[in-house]
Amino acid sequence: MQVLANWLKDYRAEYLPGDVIAGLVSGIMLVPQSMAYAQLAGLPPQVGLYASILPLASYALLGSSPVLSVGPVAVMALMVMAGLAPLADPGSPTFVHLTLGLSLLIGLIQTVMGILRLGFLVHFLSHGVITAFTSAAALIIAFGQLKHLLGVKIPTTESLPGLIHALVNSLDQVNVWALGLGLLAITLLVYGQSHLAAHLQGIGIPKPWILPLTKAAPLAAVILTTGIVAVLGWSDRLAVVGEVPRGLPHLTLGAVQNQPWGSLVLPALAISLVGFTESYAMGQSLASKKRQKVDPDQDLVGLGVANLVAALNGGMPVTGGISRSVVNFQAGANTGLASLITAALLALTVLFLTPLFQDLPQTTLAATVIVAVIKIIDFRPLYHSWRYDPAEAGVWLLTFAGVLVLGVEQGIGLGALTAIGIYLWRTSRPHIAIVGQVPGTEHYRNIQRHAVLTEETILLVRVDESLYFANAAYLETYLLRLVTEQPQVQHLVLICSAVNAIDGSALESLLNLIAKLRDAGVTLHLAEVKGPIIDRLKSIDFLDNLSPGQIFLSTHQAMTTLKPLGSPSHSIHS
Amino acid sequence: MQVLANWLKDYRAEYLPGDVIAGLVSGIMLVPQSMAYAQLAGLPPQVGLYASILPLASYALLGSSPVLSVGPVAVMALMVMAGLAPLADPGSPTFVHLTLGLSLLIGLIQTVMGILRLGFLVHFLSHGVITAFTSAAALIIAFGQLKHLLGVKIPTTESLPGLIHALVNSLDQVNVWALGLGLLAITLLVYGQSHLAAHLQGIGIPKPWILPLTKAAPLAAVILTTGIVAVLGWSDRLAVVGEVPRGLPHLTLGAVQNQPWGSLVLPALAISLVGFTESYAMGQSLASKKRQKVDPDQDLVGLGVANLVAALNGGMPVTGGISRSVVNFQAGANTGLASLITAALLALTVLFLTPLFQDLPQTTLAATVIVAVIKIIDFRPLYHSWRYDPAEAGVWLLTFAGVLVLGVEQGIGLGALTAIGIYLWRTSRPHIAIVGQVPGTEHYRNIQRHAVLTEETILLVRVDESLYFANAAYLETYLLRLVTEQPQVQHLVLICSAVNAIDGSALESLLNLIAKLRDAGVTLHLAEVKGPIIDRLKSIDFLDNLSPGQIFLSTHQAMTTLKPLGSPSHSIHS
Repeated sequence: MQVLANWLKDYRAEYLPGDVIAGLVSGIMLVPQSMAYAQLAGLPPQVGLYASILPLASYALLGSSPVLSVGPVAVMALMVMAGLAPLADPGSPTFVHLTLGLSLLIGLIQTVMGILRLGFLVHFLSHGVITAFTSAAALIIAFGQLKHLLGVKIPTTESLPGLIHALVNSLDQVNVWALGLGLLAITLLVYGQSHLAAHLQGIGIPKPWILPLTKAAPLAAVILTTGIVAVLGWSDRLAVVGEVPRGLPHLTLGAVQNQPWGSLVLPALAISLVGFTESYAMGQSLASKKRQKVDPDQDLVGLGVANLVAALNGGMPVTGGISRSVVNFQAGANTGLASLITAALLALTVLFLTPLFQDLPQTTLAATVIVAVIKIIDFRPLYHSWRYDPAEAGVWLLTFAGVLVLGVEQGIGLGALTAIGIYLWRTSRPHIAIVGQVPGTEHYRNIQRHAVLTEETILLVRVDESLYFANAAYLETYLLRLVTEQPQVQHLVLICSAVNAIDGSALESLLNLIAKLRDAGVTLHLAEVKGPIIDRLKSIDFLDNLSPGQIFLSTHQAMTTLKPLGSPSHSIHS
Repeated sequence: MQVLANWLKDYRAEYLPGDVIAGLVSGIMLVPQSMAYAQLAGLPPQVGLYASILPLASYALLGSSPVLSVGPVAVMALMVMAGLAPLADPGSPTFVHLTLGLSLLIGLIQTVMGILRLGFLVHFLSHGVITAFTSAAALIIAFGQLKHLLGVKIPTTESLPGLIHALVNSLDQVNVWALGLGLLAITLLVYGQSHLAAHLQGIGIPKPWILPLTKAAPLAAVILTTGIVAVLGWSDRLAVVGEVPRGLPHLTLGAVQNQPWGSLVLPALAISLVGFTESYAMGQSLASKKRQKVDPDQDLVGLGVANLVAALNGGMPVTGGISRSVVNFQAGANTGLASLITAALLALTVLFLTPLFQDLPQTTLAATVIVAVIKIIDFRPLYHSWRYDPAEAGVWLLTFAGVLVLGVEQGIGLGALTAIGIYLWRTSRPHIAIVGQVPGTEHYRNIQRHAVLTEETILLVRVDESLYFANAAYLETYLLRLVTEQPQVQHLVLICSAVNAIDGSALESLLNLIAKLRDAGVTLHLAEVKGPIIDRLKSIDFLDNLSPGQIFLSTHQAMTTLKPLGSPSHSIHS
């Protein structure tokens, strides 16, 4: 693992234009988004801005994915809210303090995991679990922001049914000013995403300008709605952001003081893993487009340091964001310099522009969040897995329902454990085929699918799975039952062409099987055993235990060796 | 699943002598053992006797393993003590009442698991976990009985270090009468197991009498030590069993009343699984000697009903015992009738002989337990696994230490989860080999092990594991890295000869991989895909996504098809 990102060593002048433009475009998009995700997490807007300055810059210097744009993201913001709401009132100073502690823990967990090379753990969250979780989280986020859009006050709830219930009960208190401005913002944002690019092209705007202009739609919505509130003096008619402190945050060790660490560990673990998963998937996808490498462990350290910096610098937990990284990439980012420029833009905003956000309506931020997350909701993975692997579709639905009804971490945990359980169950009952000889060849095939020749005293059995503790006893029982049902059998040949490993329990089970078969007058042989497995079996005198049974190179060799001289003609199965 | 055991339908006269002798021998052995295991569980001795009457008989009528002898066993007794000691004082009426509730839950769990065909779950306790657990449990049991042997009173503790500490502190209060009689009993028992058979043979005792006589050693120890206490009037000098109620227990539904079900569920689950595991392993081992079948699910129902009967009839949890089943088998048992005779003998004992146990010393029962369990302690599995699979040795040590220090259920849970974790970890990082052509053949082998031919533009990669969510991303990353490192590659052929399954997540990952490789200018092909997998891939239009990549029947076919015309000469790796 190296300490600094590669791009610092061999920066080339030709990278500069792309980096500058991408850095500016990302910054324009990030200003409203950061504040919106802070609001989603139950935090004051500046916390989101702070998280997009030094944490973003530190990842750019340390992380392994040069065009990844790091900062607050919607799903993590939701998990911060869900994890901390039981401990303090959202928006309160205690809540902000807890957020710093959470960022610190996330930073420590990710850094240590990276150093210990535990990045592989991310793979145990299956694709189905991740897509189901993000879709469900997006639904909760969108519904959770509706209260700002409608301008009503409802208590924080963690489950979607509770949220919908509270929203329906508050429909008589809808604030028409908030709803009106919110719908205006949504219209602008949706237009920016859908038709704006075509219209700009239609009126002859040069192509390089089109992406920056479309990505400025959120900023335009902020300026327009804030302007309306300021000019018409509506700030007492609807909820606005209010005073945002001016100036950069101080570096402080306050995050380490008076934290209920025990209550923070579980949310921190869940957020660390989910945050890294989102970021790594994105980083890898971008890197492969350029045939670049992403080192998951270096990436963990990069994200971990970014979160530690967030904790020491007044920010919220961060990770690599999907939508903003795509924008960064499309706008031409070549290296981490783009992110440094974005961070500088955010720093300037905090230094000089925060007074302008005084009259920014909360409904505008809610509109930003809703339009951003609604694209994440995607039922196609459910449809695909339904066709290919219904059990996976079951995991998808379980995770989705679990996140909506039980909560984010519970839903992910339920889905991940179920997926592992299904895998273990499947491998615990491997496919086992009795095979026979394809007439006139040296090939052996399943007697239930092919017309093949068999020998009465020889049973040829192929097991299609590595042997380990959870299937060893199953195989043992299965084979013992076979010889019980066919008392004329004298030789049982276990074909191991699909056996990639034999663990200690399976070995013990094989030794048991040899003894039990011997008790029953049957000799066990192996065939087509892979080289590394033979080496290990030889190292522990397995062959002495197997004797008089043998290990044959091929099934055909086993058949010709064991077939009694002048045996009766074969029977044909079909 | 059938309701009654097979032997009831086709009993033959020739089975009778063996069944009668085995039934009597088992009964003679079971009387002291049942009382000793009751003492070990913190229960009055009659509870052990009751558990050996109707539960034993009901398994004989319902279970699938005809010569299995069911009753109280040492490991379950320990788990009853460990599970209930936090809830009530051992020996108290509340403790006995809780035991009935526990038996009821175990009976329900096992019956329902059997009906739902969940017998396969037992396979997830790996061989290493089971042997480590039984050895550690035997150590705890033996040390736990030392207090009776020494005649000292120490508080109930669950961990071995605590037990040893308390024993050492109480050494100044040793009761010499208890110790003396205990050592006498141990001498008798060890002699009965070691030299008695040879001595009996030496003095010309007929062979059929030798087994019953040696197995009567525990009864002889009971009679001798009880006689000494009664004749010499020592009953106030050492702890004796005291008054044992005379007569059969009543059938009662008392077990269902006033139970803290929530606190009983976890011990009940653990005992259900462990009890079934011990019983099933034994039953299967005995059945295979006669080429008979054991149905795990019918066995679960048989054990479940036996435990329900224990709960309704004043008994403790039961399962198939290892040592007593072996004795039953060796004494010639052919069918469940042997167990019915044993149960009848126990019933007669309870009806007429309990006054004789008044002066039975507790130290004798402790001696019976110690001599029985000391044989279970076995470090050979650790030695074997150390040589073949050090990770499995680690699981063994972890389970062993966990049971000794943390407790029985905790140790088993820790071991089982670690074993599953290791398996998942291994399958998540499959062996992947780059292969080349063995010159002059159609065989392809690992370029790191063999001198083979390769083609600059074609990368042949074999993955030795089924593809599922936990290794799909690993494979994807690995392959992307390979093509990043070898920019001249145009075709990547994934050889799937060892791939037994591709789950939904892995499929999604393959689709991702196809797209990412295409971005990088590389076409993915598959080769040697198994029939059932091809069928499933075809069902979801995978081939359209793969195109222009193809699925080749063999690696050689891929090589000859993809090799550019007039390509430069091969390079040889070795």
